[in-house]
Amino acid sequence: MEETVFDRIIRREIPADIVAESGDLLAFRDIRPLAPVHVLIIPKRRIPSIDALSDTDADLVGRMILMARDIARDLNISEKGYKLLFRTGRDGGQEIPHIHLHLIGGARLTEGIGPVNKTKKEE
Amino acid sequence: MEETVFDRIIRREIPADIVAESGDLLAFRDIRPLAPVHVLIIPKRRIPSIDALSDTDADLVGRMILMARDIARDLNISEKGYKLLFRTGRDGGQEIPHIHLHLIGGARLTEGIGPVNKTKKEE
Repeated sequence: MEETVFDRIIRREIPADIVAESGDLLAFRDIRPLAPVHVLIIPKRRIPSIDALSDTDADLVGRMILMARDIARDLNISEKGYKLLFRTGRDGGQEIPHIHLHLIGGARLTEGIGPVNKTKKEE
Repeated sequence: MEETVFDRIIRREIPADIVAESGDLLAFRDIRPLAPVHVLIIPKRRIPSIDALSDTDADLVGRMILMARDIARDLNISEKGYKLLFRTGRDGGQEIPHIHLHLIGGARLTEGIGPVNKTKKEE
């Protein structure tokens, strides 16, 4: 497994706006935010994708969700709401091969998820 | 907490295209699919939102993710990829107050997540 930019963020070799950390998780703001709040929650262990999770990772990935819940509370968006998103693989639009959960909120959100061709035809 | 349509699906009072089940989880196809594969994974216990999860639910919500991983393999979309999405609250676009994880794939997907106003201005 190749190293990604996330490993360098975990090692504090490149700066990131870190919003939460636990023993095995780290959360920081996305440098290209889609909305006023856009935080990435990652495991410090390099797991390339959801498909690469093992059955023993249930607790780890569950705590990623709970960390997102807590960050949403800290950033005062939990009452209004947010989206939590894992992109996986090419069809899913995953860009960095290290699992990351997107916490997106801070505004009422649109969501245009659908097949590429269908969307193009509709435009 | 009010009952939702999901409770009736769990009790098999209304039909659903069920694709996976475990002791405390159920997965079935969304009746308004956004893509060729669109499955909802829910806990059988009624939890209204991500914000209502308790710290002891880490394993439960983690197993929802792992069930999505397994369904993606069963439906032959794990290599190409997919999106996993929790909508939470009004800003997040949540429609049914019972946690559900969307597994969306089967095609290369667009994703237009962003603030409503910004998107309107751009159109």
